[in-house]
Amino acid sequence: MSETMPSQAEMQAYLTEHKNWGRWGKEDQRGAINLITAEKRLEAIALARKGRTVSLSRPFPKNPAPNNPTPAMHWMRALERPFGVGGVIDFYGISYHGQSSTHIDALCHVWGDQGLWNGASPDMIRADGTRWGAITNWSDGIITRGVVLDVPRFRNQPFVTKDRPVTGGEMEAIAKAQDVEVRPGDALIVYSGREAYDRANELPWGTPGIPRPGLHPSTLRFIHEHDVSVLVWDMMDDEREADCPWGVHSAIFAFGVALVDNALLEPLAGVCAEEGRHEMMLMLCPLVVEGGTGSPLNPVAMF
Amino acid sequence: MSETMPSQAEMQAYLTEHKNWGRWGKEDQRGAINLITAEKRLEAIALARKGRTVSLSRPFPKNPAPNNPTPAMHWMRALERPFGVGGVIDFYGISYHGQSSTHIDALCHVWGDQGLWNGASPDMIRADGTRWGAITNWSDGIITRGVVLDVPRFRNQPFVTKDRPVTGGEMEAIAKAQDVEVRPGDALIVYSGREAYDRANELPWGTPGIPRPGLHPSTLRFIHEHDVSVLVWDMMDDEREADCPWGVHSAIFAFGVALVDNALLEPLAGVCAEEGRHEMMLMLCPLVVEGGTGSPLNPVAMF
Amino acid sequence: MSETMPSQAEMQAYLTEHKNWGRWGKEDQRGAINLITAEKRLEAIALARKGRTVSLSRPFPKNPAPNNPTPAMHWMRALERPFGVGGVIDFYGISYHGQSSTHIDALCHVWGDQGLWNGASPDMIRADGTRWGAITNWSDGIITRGVVLDVPRFRNQPFVTKDRPVTGGEMEAIAKAQDVEVRPGDALIVYSGREAYDRANELPWGTPGIPRPGLHPSTLRFIHEHDVSVLVWDMMDDEREADCPWGVHSAIFAFGVALVDNALLEPLAGVCAEEGRHEMMLMLCPLVVEGGTGSPLNPVAMF
Amino acid sequence: MSETMPSQAEMQAYLTEHKNWGRWGKEDQRGAINLITAEKRLEAIALARKGRTVSLSRPFPKNPAPNNPTPAMHWMRALERPFGVGGVIDFYGISYHGQSSTHIDALCHVWGDQGLWNGASPDMIRADGTRWGAITNWSDGIITRGVVLDVPRFRNQPFVTKDRPVTGGEMEAIAKAQDVEVRPGDALIVYSGREAYDRANELPWGTPGIPRPGLHPSTLRFIHEHDVSVLVWDMMDDEREADCPWGVHSAIFAFGVALVDNALLEPLAGVCAEEGRHEMMLMLCPLVVEGGTGSPLNPVAMF
Repeated sequence: MSETMPSQAEMQAYLTEHKNWGRWGKEDQRGAINLITAEKRLEAIALARKGRTVSLSRPFPKNPAPNNPTPAMHWMRALERPFGVGGVIDFYGISYHGQSSTHIDALCHVWGDQGLWNGASPDMIRADGTRWGAITNWSDGIITRGVVLDVPRFRNQPFVTKDRPVTGGEMEAIAKAQDVEVRPGDALIVYSGREAYDRANELPWGTPGIPRPGLHPSTLRFIHEHDVSVLVWDMMDDEREADCPWGVHSAIFAFGVALVDNALLEPLAGVCAEEGRHEMMLMLCPLVVEGGTGSPLNPVAMF
Repeated sequence: MSETMPSQAEMQAYLTEHKNWGRWGKEDQRGAINLITAEKRLEAIALARKGRTVSLSRPFPKNPAPNNPTPAMHWMRALERPFGVGGVIDFYGISYHGQSSTHIDALCHVWGDQGLWNGASPDMIRADGTRWGAITNWSDGIITRGVVLDVPRFRNQPFVTKDRPVTGGEMEAIAKAQDVEVRPGDALIVYSGREAYDRANELPWGTPGIPRPGLHPSTLRFIHEHDVSVLVWDMMDDEREADCPWGVHSAIFAFGVALVDNALLEPLAGVCAEEGRHEMMLMLCPLVVEGGTGSPLNPVAMF
Repeated sequence: MSETMPSQAEMQAYLTEHKNWGRWGKEDQRGAINLITAEKRLEAIALARKGRTVSLSRPFPKNPAPNNPTPAMHWMRALERPFGVGGVIDFYGISYHGQSSTHIDALCHVWGDQGLWNGASPDMIRADGTRWGAITNWSDGIITRGVVLDVPRFRNQPFVTKDRPVTGGEMEAIAKAQDVEVRPGDALIVYSGREAYDRANELPWGTPGIPRPGLHPSTLRFIHEHDVSVLVWDMMDDEREADCPWGVHSAIFAFGVALVDNALLEPLAGVCAEEGRHEMMLMLCPLVVEGGTGSPLNPVAMF
Repeated sequence: MSETMPSQAEMQAYLTEHKNWGRWGKEDQRGAINLITAEKRLEAIALARKGRTVSLSRPFPKNPAPNNPTPAMHWMRALERPFGVGGVIDFYGISYHGQSSTHIDALCHVWGDQGLWNGASPDMIRADGTRWGAITNWSDGIITRGVVLDVPRFRNQPFVTKDRPVTGGEMEAIAKAQDVEVRPGDALIVYSGREAYDRANELPWGTPGIPRPGLHPSTLRFIHEHDVSVLVWDMMDDEREADCPWGVHSAIFAFGVALVDNALLEPLAGVCAEEGRHEMMLMLCPLVVEGGTGSPLNPVAMF
């Protein structure tokens, strides 16, 4: 691979120069989701030609695991009713950010030294919720075209490894090899083989203390040049020294991109192979939590 | 209204005789969602002609209220990071059944004296989750045609009142007046004017101790005869004496119908009026909680 | 009552002039609990002459109520074990500050415009816990002499009313009438008749929107002059216009006093009457929560 | 050690024959805590001769660890107040049973094949709390004489090892060597060196999959013959094959003994050595949770 990796200074300069702040007005809190217009949604719908659906969600992470140190809570309670009938309710509790739960990050989730998305101050983050970039900006749902980049298939290797992160140049090459175009407003779905990684390694991807493979900061340029609205990934940022404080997560505050972390992509990649295409309709319906920094999510794709 | 109301004995007999148990096999746990085939999903998609979306979700019910005695929890935590950057995470906790949270009921949620959906024993409900009829049976998403019945518009009254519950006969009349057909596999969306009720009453709909207006058990026959897969409603069962232990909720265990409780339907009804049609595509993507009895949900409709 | 009420400016000046900052060193985080020496504990123990104990705790506030808008959570889970044996565990969740839970406030809980206890900066309060004045400063337990002031008995009225808050002058008079001395290091237990108030009023004490009766800010002088270590109360600060931002809660940051809020004092007052004395041993054993702002508590008194 | 270990059948027979059911009446739910009379409390108080206190509580287990798979929750929330003042509250959530939290087991916590304490049916355990043997039976506090058995000191080894569990015979020998008598109503505090074990082993005591050292079921006889009311321990039941379904935990339902699990005993043992005695006053003040199966706890000892 002859691609020249950008230096830290270059990536920081790139982010600073190319950020989308002001692009949709100074008051905008929807970010790159603005690129998903009614027309874009119709483009997505046109891809649902067979009515075949597949979930991109891992199970609600109730079980403790090395990459799930604070498991989600699930408590059951039976209801006592007369007449021999019955019922049951339950409680769900989750701190969904991290490496276990399939979730979407709102634009307030992370920020750089120049501030939150669109230049807002970190003071907008309050004790009872955020006043800027909350998940409720996307309550009407994110329905758009999804494009899968299948890295293991391209590399002919089961999963991305630590020594070889996914780069922006490689993403261009994969799109070309798959004969698929990444367009403005798309959800870019990068499959890196997390399940295969977990089968091959004793400790799961995302275990603290074990630097995790994933996407190189150079993919930020790809994301920006293609005007991607959503990044869906199974492995996330390649974990490296602080040469780029938030890594690819910087797409949140710099470009206004919605990130869907810890997606389950092996089944989706399988369906892509069966269907012989890497584009489909994608549906994201985040919970309507006022002041929330994101949402646990069940992304559903339709072919 | 000359409709003869069925007696308790008649409704119980109806449920017993017409239940869908065994219809999709003895092992089936998907219930009436089986009616939503790939073809049905394509029928739904064909209704998304404009790319206009609307959410059917109330806000995550964090605020105490008379109809929200155990509010959802939302706790924020800032992340301290070096280099002047920052981040924030949060915790969501919710016992979502009840009268506040927009949510979907899994088939295990309630049962009658003959058992759970498809005849399963209540013993399948365990301390750490259900072994039957869990929400995960619908993880691939429920994408179907939605049909709105707008009761206030039909009645020319702002909301359904306690003295006049919505009946099966009235639902037939509304469908006819709206010139819309309710078909197998549909999501039946019954708008009863909950927001208008709340504006007109001091205590919100669903306050304990105040019998709430809603749907009469006679609507069970309508639901069954039209082979509805999903019932979406803002007001729920008309609250009455125990003449039908679970009221319209009986559709869960008798017919295998998915219920979406506490939906926000005033905006949807407004869009229906604007668009001049009462059918659209509906997307339900419940969280993938193994053993879960349902899920908080943001239902999204697309015209 | 001819007592002259201090003005706002006077109380603020009093707090500023008489605060205990620096009294136990600049690094001290134990506050007035320093007054509880080994000798003081022996003084307390000497009062436990009969071995009779009584709890000062209300029930864990699981039930929604007007003064309990965010109830404590209690979830049960059965354990399945072989050999016909069994077990059960449960989860407790509580945001214990407020008007419902019997709890102790750590010294970080509230602060004035000059800072936290002993002059620390509010910056010491972090997202994952406090770095100053945490409850763990009192982990060895607070065992001291308790002195009950029985206001209803003194007034010959069932409970303190809004129009007549308890004042410092009245506390002196009660102590004199009861022939009991309030000494340095004591836990001052002020019984105001909360249960009787609740029996006489439709809405319980502490319901938002209903100004609550309680202790007047002038009691701060009494607390300080007697070098009280702990204030235990059933009604708390008299709710008034902002003439003293934190009211009697100012004793936390100004004097370093531990506050035990929402104590159950009617049974204790009854035992005092039976035993013919208003002093006893008091045991407070707060949970050892690093960075915690207080603790739910079961205070136990022994006669 | 020539002590003959009882067989499974012998221990089961012993439990069946010697259980305390009916000893304090058929309706009794306080169990062996009945042995702690006012006189017993005065006996305890007489031991608090110096006023020196020490906590027996580990920190609230917020940090994930191999023996803490579902950590306790601690969420902070700042309060915004006018006038430049401030405040902070927090939420504590814990499933306290297990191997991490210092807590007390109520009599309902575990049961054998003959039922719960005093013969009650497991049907008394309900979805919203227990109807039998709840922690509220001990709300007035458990104040009694504590007797420490220091196993590491007796063995001249830093901690109890898997190959050599603590037996009833050894406990007799330790009491004799320490010249201390174990009497009816006492809290028996068995120190097994858990901190030293944790320092010497990579994985902490109580890590699932690593059989843990602790007390042999033969100690049940010791507990019963001495009419112990409370068992406080750092290591708990020696983990072994199912030769005694609940191990030493059987003391709960057979004898009505209160168990304080995961106590922090190294500091207490140190104080015992300094003070030259192994008896002191012990104070246990469990939270008043109606229907609760136990309570997180800060046990405090006073010399």
